[in-house]
Amino acid sequence: MNGGEPEPHAAWLPPEAFRALGARRVLVHGDGPLVDTVFDEVVWACAGHGGQAWRTGVGAKSGDAPATGSPAPPATGSGPAADDPAVERPAVDDPVVERPMVGGPVDLVLALRGTEPVPPVVPVDATATPVGDDGPLGDEGFLLVRVDDVTVVLADAPAGLLYGLFELVRLGEAAFTGDRPAQPHRPALRRRMLDHWDNVAVHPVMGQVERGYAGGSIFWRDGVPHGDRDRLRAYGRLLASCGINAISVNNVNVGAVEARLLTDRLDDVAEIADLLRRYGVRVHLSVTFAAPVVLGGLPTADPLDDGVRDWWDATTRRVYARIPDFGGYVVKADSEGQPGPFTYGRDHADGANLLADALAPHGGVVHWRAFVYDHRQDWRDRTTDRARAAYDHFAPLDGRFADNVVLQVKYGPVDFQPREPVSPVIAAMPATRLAVELQVTQEYTGQQWHACYLAPWWSEVLGFRPWGPQERTVADVLADVPGPGPGRGGDLVAVSNVGDDPFWCGHPLAQANLYAFGRLAWDPGLEPGAILDEWIDLTFPAPTVGDPALVRETLHAVLDDSWRTYERYTAPLGVGFMVNPAGHYGPGVDGYEYSRWGTYHFADRDGVGVDRTRATGTGFAGQYPPPWSQVYESPERCPDELLLFFHHVPYSHVLHSGSTVIQHIYDTHFAGVQEVVAMRDRWRGLADVIDRAVYDRVAERLEEQLRCATEWRDQINTYFFRKSGVPDARGRRIH
Amino acid sequence: MNGGEPEPHAAWLPPEAFRALGARRVLVHGDGPLVDTVFDEVVWACAGHGGQAWRTGVGAKSGDAPATGSPAPPATGSGPAADDPAVERPAVDDPVVERPMVGGPVDLVLALRGTEPVPPVVPVDATATPVGDDGPLGDEGFLLVRVDDVTVVLADAPAGLLYGLFELVRLGEAAFTGDRPAQPHRPALRRRMLDHWDNVAVHPVMGQVERGYAGGSIFWRDGVPHGDRDRLRAYGRLLASCGINAISVNNVNVGAVEARLLTDRLDDVAEIADLLRRYGVRVHLSVTFAAPVVLGGLPTADPLDDGVRDWWDATTRRVYARIPDFGGYVVKADSEGQPGPFTYGRDHADGANLLADALAPHGGVVHWRAFVYDHRQDWRDRTTDRARAAYDHFAPLDGRFADNVVLQVKYGPVDFQPREPVSPVIAAMPATRLAVELQVTQEYTGQQWHACYLAPWWSEVLGFRPWGPQERTVADVLADVPGPGPGRGGDLVAVSNVGDDPFWCGHPLAQANLYAFGRLAWDPGLEPGAILDEWIDLTFPAPTVGDPALVRETLHAVLDDSWRTYERYTAPLGVGFMVNPAGHYGPGVDGYEYSRWGTYHFADRDGVGVDRTRATGTGFAGQYPPPWSQVYESPERCPDELLLFFHHVPYSHVLHSGSTVIQHIYDTHFAGVQEVVAMRDRWRGLADVIDRAVYDRVAERLEEQLRCATEWRDQINTYFFRKSGVPDARGRRIH
Repeated sequence: MNGGEPEPHAAWLPPEAFRALGARRVLVHGDGPLVDTVFDEVVWACAGHGGQAWRTGVGAKSGDAPATGSPAPPATGSGPAADDPAVERPAVDDPVVERPMVGGPVDLVLALRGTEPVPPVVPVDATATPVGDDGPLGDEGFLLVRVDDVTVVLADAPAGLLYGLFELVRLGEAAFTGDRPAQPHRPALRRRMLDHWDNVAVHPVMGQVERGYAGGSIFWRDGVPHGDRDRLRAYGRLLASCGINAISVNNVNVGAVEARLLTDRLDDVAEIADLLRRYGVRVHLSVTFAAPVVLGGLPTADPLDDGVRDWWDATTRRVYARIPDFGGYVVKADSEGQPGPFTYGRDHADGANLLADALAPHGGVVHWRAFVYDHRQDWRDRTTDRARAAYDHFAPLDGRFADNVVLQVKYGPVDFQPREPVSPVIAAMPATRLAVELQVTQEYTGQQWHACYLAPWWSEVLGFRPWGPQERTVADVLADVPGPGPGRGGDLVAVSNVGDDPFWCGHPLAQANLYAFGRLAWDPGLEPGAILDEWIDLTFPAPTVGDPALVRETLHAVLDDSWRTYERYTAPLGVGFMVNPAGHYGPGVDGYEYSRWGTYHFADRDGVGVDRTRATGTGFAGQYPPPWSQVYESPERCPDELLLFFHHVPYSHVLHSGSTVIQHIYDTHFAGVQEVVAMRDRWRGLADVIDRAVYDRVAERLEEQLRCATEWRDQINTYFFRKSGVPDARGRRIH
Repeated sequence: MNGGEPEPHAAWLPPEAFRALGARRVLVHGDGPLVDTVFDEVVWACAGHGGQAWRTGVGAKSGDAPATGSPAPPATGSGPAADDPAVERPAVDDPVVERPMVGGPVDLVLALRGTEPVPPVVPVDATATPVGDDGPLGDEGFLLVRVDDVTVVLADAPAGLLYGLFELVRLGEAAFTGDRPAQPHRPALRRRMLDHWDNVAVHPVMGQVERGYAGGSIFWRDGVPHGDRDRLRAYGRLLASCGINAISVNNVNVGAVEARLLTDRLDDVAEIADLLRRYGVRVHLSVTFAAPVVLGGLPTADPLDDGVRDWWDATTRRVYARIPDFGGYVVKADSEGQPGPFTYGRDHADGANLLADALAPHGGVVHWRAFVYDHRQDWRDRTTDRARAAYDHFAPLDGRFADNVVLQVKYGPVDFQPREPVSPVIAAMPATRLAVELQVTQEYTGQQWHACYLAPWWSEVLGFRPWGPQERTVADVLADVPGPGPGRGGDLVAVSNVGDDPFWCGHPLAQANLYAFGRLAWDPGLEPGAILDEWIDLTFPAPTVGDPALVRETLHAVLDDSWRTYERYTAPLGVGFMVNPAGHYGPGVDGYEYSRWGTYHFADRDGVGVDRTRATGTGFAGQYPPPWSQVYESPERCPDELLLFFHHVPYSHVLHSGSTVIQHIYDTHFAGVQEVVAMRDRWRGLADVIDRAVYDRVAERLEEQLRCATEWRDQINTYFFRKSGVPDARGRRIH
């Protein structure tokens, strides 16, 4: 690696993961930079595992040197490096091109359809197949088929070939065994995006990365670009391999330095875009709504002002002149102190459409965040309910947003808690493109000190049916596919958990969350356990000693239920926000109870929870369509795990589980800690099985998780025992 | 002022305060730099108010030019500036010396006894008087007498003359009216000291001044000296005028940059010492116990290691070579992460004596802080009691400290709360010199946003009788005067509330705390109300309009009871530490309840308070000698205001006041806010009476005080209502 940085962990793309593919004789057919990337990957894999690589169909475009190559030089741990002079691309007249390629010699073809001449090795039936029953492969899809001992990946666009390549990596030897009927693969969601809350300049409170738990930023350091280009290239490769195709490169809270990325520091953004483009990842930018004032020197940022519109048009033109495939803008407006259209008496549709109009001619989108609420609430005011805010602000605007506005909605109505109901905004805005925002960075789920595999939670969110059991899921709404029901399609977006930590994510097992996010965004129907299997097989491909099933079994034991374990030892029954306000790590039961943040639990000596019913509470339950409005309204019908989110109940209230609320609190907190003990003990079984650095890092963090979980258990149990006076039915120690 | 700084507020030394003195014909007799300072003050005062000044008895020392002067140039707001070339010192042969000085022409003589020739104007009986019945005037005392229309201040040492001068300023016209029998004035305590918790480099968490609420440091800015020499001179003048004679110039938490003040950055300290010396203030330095390692490169800082002793000896010699009147070292050792003798298996006597031995040949002292406790306590562990820590650590060491060690004990056993019992260490260490440490900076008393006149609280502390009602007070113990009872005398020390704010203290009325601290250290028997009168008369000498009593009455109304008001609306009955952990401003009832800091209230649905009895609690009450050990042990005899410090009682417990604990909580919190409303309203009466900038600053802060007091009231009342379920007997609104 250049830049003097230590080489980061290979994550789920160690050289060994390419063994099956790299041992084959591979033909890459097609043209363009992304096909170059595919070919470089193949060359690198073959160099490491004894295969051979050829290339055909390369046009004469500048920068796309026709190439084949075999064998390639020894691989590095983090994949091919195009800048590495040791990776040579032989000229077209290299003798290996002359080898016979029909029949035996070739095991795998990755071919871009429509690139002439079609290489003779590609099976005729595969090239002719019209891609299943439901239309073309599109910009990112691919067809995978295996006939006559030849595996073939076909795509209509270069990105499809790239995704097909990584599908082969996932399949491993299975991709080269037996026959495989032609199967099309297409992403369910058009945009699968990570938001980096990375600051360019170190923020005095939030640091280099807001809610970052993995060291510094991979993009920025102390006000300037980080400078580790190899790291960024490796990052792009990881993203592509799990299906992510867009990122924003700076925090949604845009400071003075960060604002300038849009104008005089655009080159810094372009440099990132240049590196990530070769893995099909487009770059987006968080901008400040006040940019016309703070950057343009205009007297106003009023979205209906002609000068403001002109400024955004001209500025955006300059952005696209520099970065032709620029993705668009991300905006946090009128939220937690960020400027927005309210300043000018305009609404959020006015604000979002202003930017959307500037982006539309260039094919860009604006991600407009719906995270707008009163962050200076008075805790004494029981009529204001932060959970209502996004719906109250945005539902009336449905239909008014331009086609290239994506309204970005946090999955829950409050803020990334381990348990919330799914946001009612999703059902309320059928005429608006939506993005659901997840949080891969573990702000409220253990900050990458706790092992907490979040895919089961995300899967629940994506599988939620806003209009009831027979209707579409959230994933259906986001997937822009034809079909009945409301919704205009949208994106899946998540806040990144990546930093310049050697393990990318602080906790090596948190890499599984990053991987799973990409996979769920590609296919929301994937089972979390199956995704975990993929990740395990890629990340830990060859245990050095012992039972080959041990690693897989251990990782499932540690991770499968880890999110529910986290839920158990932290805030009970959906009540949320019992965290330490200083950083959101560890317990602070009353930490937010008398604050301005609108996140209260109202525990007293008799009971706990927030009455959000229409009948007697804030009315939030009424923001859902039936049947959920009725289900949530009723303390009898409300799911246990959301009871305290919707209802203030006595400690003696009996749950569906048969337990009382107070006994549930005690039981789950004792159980949660026991489960962490089991995780910690189970992990020890890998001490001499996996890479020592990974083992040690995880072992260290499991000890901290146990310490912290114990603290949660004791504080929560003590707090509620002091308040309720009800002893534990099982007589365990409560302090 | 130089340095481009705005001229700071004159505090209690505006030119007008010198009117009575400055209108007189004054002779200054004596020799030396401090007499120069006295003479400069007189010249400046006479220049502003029409008087005349002469000087006699000046020797031939370099830099002490014989001088008389009249009239002097116009005064600046902040007193005479010796560097100002406009203040000339006429030569000895100036004709004014020839004026007849016996009888009519001279109104005031300030004379240093023993300086020949005695000027003929000095009344013979005064010069002959052997200073009352109890010995000499000492280094800082003076005799004040008025006979035959001549006021005379006599001193045996220059500092006495300086303090006599400021006594005249305080007396104003009264110093020049009628006869006044000869009265000696001597400070009760030998050392009256302010500790500045100022960092040289800005600390990433604590900032430029730890627990500073008045802007930056007057000494340091961003790693280098602040550079405003006029400000430091003005500060020295303020200190001398209220009797303070020592300061430490850097935080007791000594960082890497600060450590070097002892060695290669000693010049920075010397520069401060040079400026403050002319007002009789000696400079001390906070040092790190690890200095031999971090500065000296030694392998150890073991106090019994010969190399370590040699290093401290040599280092201290260099300090005194540069600053001959250097005061000594201040040390926070083995406390909150600071290094100390425990690292080497030594005790605090070993550690303190190491430094004391190095300082002894030069007349320096070491202030060794007794603030040593386990700051990583487990809240679940009810056997550990932070209140016990100082006694447990230090009482066994009584008698082992060198004579020039001053053990510096916080006034209460925990940490500067608005109400604590007086530390039991004071009674426990009769063979040790002690300093009681107060906190002028309002860390826990409103951070100079709240008007909180602390002299009544300090007066209670100083008047406490550790061995019972018939025995000596804390002030008696500290005052090193002959008399019965244990104790070896000591100092009064306080953490400064001064910064580079234009009003010195953020809140203009917080200047009264600084003034009162100095006055109480000089004479602990002064009444807080009388001190306030002095401060008012000096600070607001001439109301421009209206009733001349209005300012005095208003300030008394706002300040007299303000500490008890603060106590009422914050933490009840001595329970302490219900503050927001993020900065100690505003309420956070459970903020420290589950922390590692050892500060808990143990409130549950039935009661509140800490059982510190011997019978059933931590045993802390047993650290006091009788009768206090019995008084505090008993919930019936324990004073109401300390009840929850010593006892866990039910909410229904009836206080001596006749109220229950829960009703007391409600009543005092409602009353406290009402009192702040009254303070705010009362202040408005001064809108057109006093300086607008002072008025506005105070008015702004009273609004914030009201907001914050209301927050305290509502959070405390709501918290205890939710826990106890007991409604307010008077039916007021509790949220």
